[in-house]
Amino acid sequence: MATIEILSADQALANLSNHKLGRIVMHSRDGLEIFPINYVTDRINLYFRTAPGTKLSGIMTNSDVVFEVDHVEANEAWSVVVKGDAEQVRDYSEKCYIDTLDLTPWVPTRKQNYIRITPREISGRSFRLSNQIERY
Amino acid sequence: MATIEILSADQALANLSNHKLGRIVMHSRDGLEIFPINYVTDRINLYFRTAPGTKLSGIMTNSDVVFEVDHVEANEAWSVVVKGDAEQVRDYSEKCYIDTLDLTPWVPTRKQNYIRITPREISGRSFRLSNQIERY
Repeated sequence: MATIEILSADQALANLSNHKLGRIVMHSRDGLEIFPINYVTDRINLYFRTAPGTKLSGIMTNSDVVFEVDHVEANEAWSVVVKGDAEQVRDYSEKCYIDTLDLTPWVPTRKQNYIRITPREISGRSFRLSNQIERY
Repeated sequence: MATIEILSADQALANLSNHKLGRIVMHSRDGLEIFPINYVTDRINLYFRTAPGTKLSGIMTNSDVVFEVDHVEANEAWSVVVKGDAEQVRDYSEKCYIDTLDLTPWVPTRKQNYIRITPREISGRSFRLSNQIERY
């Protein structure tokens, strides 16, 4: 069995659906930025909420984002990466729909901005982990 | 107490030192890539090892990387972000030095390439987490 395996699209989506915390990478005026975010997915798009600040202005400047979720257990781990476009949700009915999806903000500050990430590509890998230091 | 606090430089370094798993973001020919990696730090640089592939070729193409570690506990979390330059270590004595740093590869495949990340900027934030859905 290989130590690294490619996840099926279904497994990658299932992993995304079963987790809440990921990290979003975006372009800003100062280069790349990465932020941990709580997100939710309806298996089509990903959604999160944010206060005004770097995340929101970054997305407004460049919608190209990369999103990552990973999980480590005793001897196995997986990582799912979503490449897509992030856009602020303006439509009230879409915000109401997102509110039905059990989106819990990570930090209890006011976050009135809803962001939708539309995936262009979802990929996932699983890893069998080493507890040994392997040299040479 | 604020829900988001900036970590001191010492605390950010301590958090980096006490963890093993982070994520590296790099530029590739196909855009941004993000990978989970096992790393180690000597509180000056970060180091990891990698097999030949996307990570190595990405760094060779563009040394500008962003690295992130985060950790979630019951009601608190933190995230440390390192912006820096990644370079393949060629010098044998530096490789021997890295071998003294308890660098455990995540996956037990052959990883003969040692990478050094030289930080330009280290920043960290801590968060008090919400278990409530806050709307509007």
